[in-house]
Amino acid sequence: MSNKGTVMAIDAMGGDWGPSVIVPGALRAARETGVGLRFVGRDSELRLELEQHSCQDLDVEVVHADEVAEAGEKSSHRMRKKRGTSIQVASHLIKDGRAQGLVSAGHTGPTLATTMLVLGRIKGIDRPGLATILPRENKPLLLVDVGANVDSKPRHLVQFAIMADTLARNVLKESSPKVGILNIGEEQGKGNAQVTEAYAMLKSTSLNFVGNMEGRDVFQSDIDIAVCDGFVGNIALKLSEGLGRAFGKMLKQELSRNRMSKLGALMARPALNRIGKRLDYEEYGGAPLLGLNGTVFVCHGSAGQTAICQAVKMAVEFTTTKANDAIRQTLEMHPELSRFHRFRHFISSGQKSGSYSEEGGSEEQQG
Amino acid sequence: MSNKGTVMAIDAMGGDWGPSVIVPGALRAARETGVGLRFVGRDSELRLELEQHSCQDLDVEVVHADEVAEAGEKSSHRMRKKRGTSIQVASHLIKDGRAQGLVSAGHTGPTLATTMLVLGRIKGIDRPGLATILPRENKPLLLVDVGANVDSKPRHLVQFAIMADTLARNVLKESSPKVGILNIGEEQGKGNAQVTEAYAMLKSTSLNFVGNMEGRDVFQSDIDIAVCDGFVGNIALKLSEGLGRAFGKMLKQELSRNRMSKLGALMARPALNRIGKRLDYEEYGGAPLLGLNGTVFVCHGSAGQTAICQAVKMAVEFTTTKANDAIRQTLEMHPELSRFHRFRHFISSGQKSGSYSEEGGSEEQQG
Repeated sequence: MSNKGTVMAIDAMGGDWGPSVIVPGALRAARETGVGLRFVGRDSELRLELEQHSCQDLDVEVVHADEVAEAGEKSSHRMRKKRGTSIQVASHLIKDGRAQGLVSAGHTGPTLATTMLVLGRIKGIDRPGLATILPRENKPLLLVDVGANVDSKPRHLVQFAIMADTLARNVLKESSPKVGILNIGEEQGKGNAQVTEAYAMLKSTSLNFVGNMEGRDVFQSDIDIAVCDGFVGNIALKLSEGLGRAFGKMLKQELSRNRMSKLGALMARPALNRIGKRLDYEEYGGAPLLGLNGTVFVCHGSAGQTAICQAVKMAVEFTTTKANDAIRQTLEMHPELSRFHRFRHFISSGQKSGSYSEEGGSEEQQG
Repeated sequence: MSNKGTVMAIDAMGGDWGPSVIVPGALRAARETGVGLRFVGRDSELRLELEQHSCQDLDVEVVHADEVAEAGEKSSHRMRKKRGTSIQVASHLIKDGRAQGLVSAGHTGPTLATTMLVLGRIKGIDRPGLATILPRENKPLLLVDVGANVDSKPRHLVQFAIMADTLARNVLKESSPKVGILNIGEEQGKGNAQVTEAYAMLKSTSLNFVGNMEGRDVFQSDIDIAVCDGFVGNIALKLSEGLGRAFGKMLKQELSRNRMSKLGALMARPALNRIGKRLDYEEYGGAPLLGLNGTVFVCHGSAGQTAICQAVKMAVEFTTTKANDAIRQTLEMHPELSRFHRFRHFISSGQKSGSYSEEGGSEEQQG
């Protein structure tokens, strides 16, 4: 119970199952860590759910929010008008100092947009990055960005790497996380303009940068962090999920085709279940949204109790280890990543710096 | 034997296994289709291999080539100097009219660069596209580009779609192939600048364009063709291969862990074998390199006899159905895709066309 005093806001209205899964999942995490919880959503629904669980010994409160953000909502305009969604109220709890982090199983789009708008970015971070933790045979892989942004600049990839490095150290307890760039070849110089520039920049950081990695290395390597544009990461993530499901379906189909294989499958069931467990996305629960002034974890819409519980526990760990402060410190060591560095360099040297151009472009999130 | 008169050049020196797999694989295709074969490579080695097979009834010749292209070779300079590699000799057989197509299991980089240099592009195609045929539960998916280019322009994606459409019609015998853009969301407007522009352009073509598809739809949808930048396609392809291997390894590990599961696996073996067969990349053998003046199929380095045989048969089908002529006809219907269209439009209208900018950029292949 070392986390007394730490409070997590839980957007309890999102996800495929709503409060009936989110509430017990988060309560389990509170019991295991001692963290305080602020369940945000429709007061009556949440109280009804809470009554089903004994939690008098826990620091639990309900904070009312009338509305729930819909899937498509991410434009600032609409969000500014709609003030009472659960994700908005939860974000303001952090802003007002009543919570240090939030966990949401709501739609990713409005969650990204709202938290970004309310909490703001860490100084030196141009764009937040959505990370995901992929289960693998040996150890998990942190893939970032999986869709918070598209058309990222090379330095954004470096910022993703810095943030993921802190996450891997503080939450996954990797002492020196290996960072790779997701690319189409291993040699330096391979790939598109974005990653070839990011390669040179990453090489000059203090990170344990090991170079490029290919698609086949995502599930079979000892690299801890794979950085990429959100367009690439999102496709890679969803492709993996889809292929996993296709495999499972095929296995079931073929094994139930006749008596002999059915019997075989029955005998091998513990083995097949172990495979399911090894591929269990629930184990890591939430996708951390890195780069905001506050801890934000987004859960998959279909997240079950275990996933919610794990996400809350990771968010607590991220908060109590002061991961965001560590990110700020690393950024201070790398002024060259600052958005205005080129401009300053231009002023001071009186000449144009050749590398990473194209400073313009929208800073809005997509995904 | 309706393909008499059609001749395929076979780069017989490439791949992990060389002539001992490529020669019998190609001979099998010749026996099934009646196509003529020109095996290109070291004369003595190839004759030795051919002696092991009875092929007196087939139109088979050996064409000597001293050298074999190495993995890294793709710069035009080095290739111009090195004239005698098997892929160069094979390409020249097409150029000289002594063959209509070629199949290579050699390294992809030099194969792309050499065939592009020797054969040239189809008029109206800016960049060739490397397609791959992914086996799926219902029907195969054509994914293009998987790495012939990176940093493609929106119109290049449309050109990939036109070429893949012809391939799907002529070789896979799909009467109206469904074309999708690999993207991070389904609604129009989702994704990066490249795909949002390509969306609008594809909508105006005569293709059966069905919109965006997400990563999870790659292995579970009825879309026939997924177009994407070579950077994205290459990562998606290699990720799928890697994940497939990881699954297989895990299945083997878990099933052999104790006697009960071993026995179960033995009883379910036919089912497990069927799964292997359904995921068999050998079935489609080769990756067509689309957009060149001639038929070019590239095989995986680890391609076995079946894959080589299938690749030759597909190359024959592509040639005899005059797929490249069909591509030329479709391109004539879409002058807006031409590289100089914008320029002409600018001259004729006296104003700058707003869409698809950034005409510059290297035309060299990477991958």
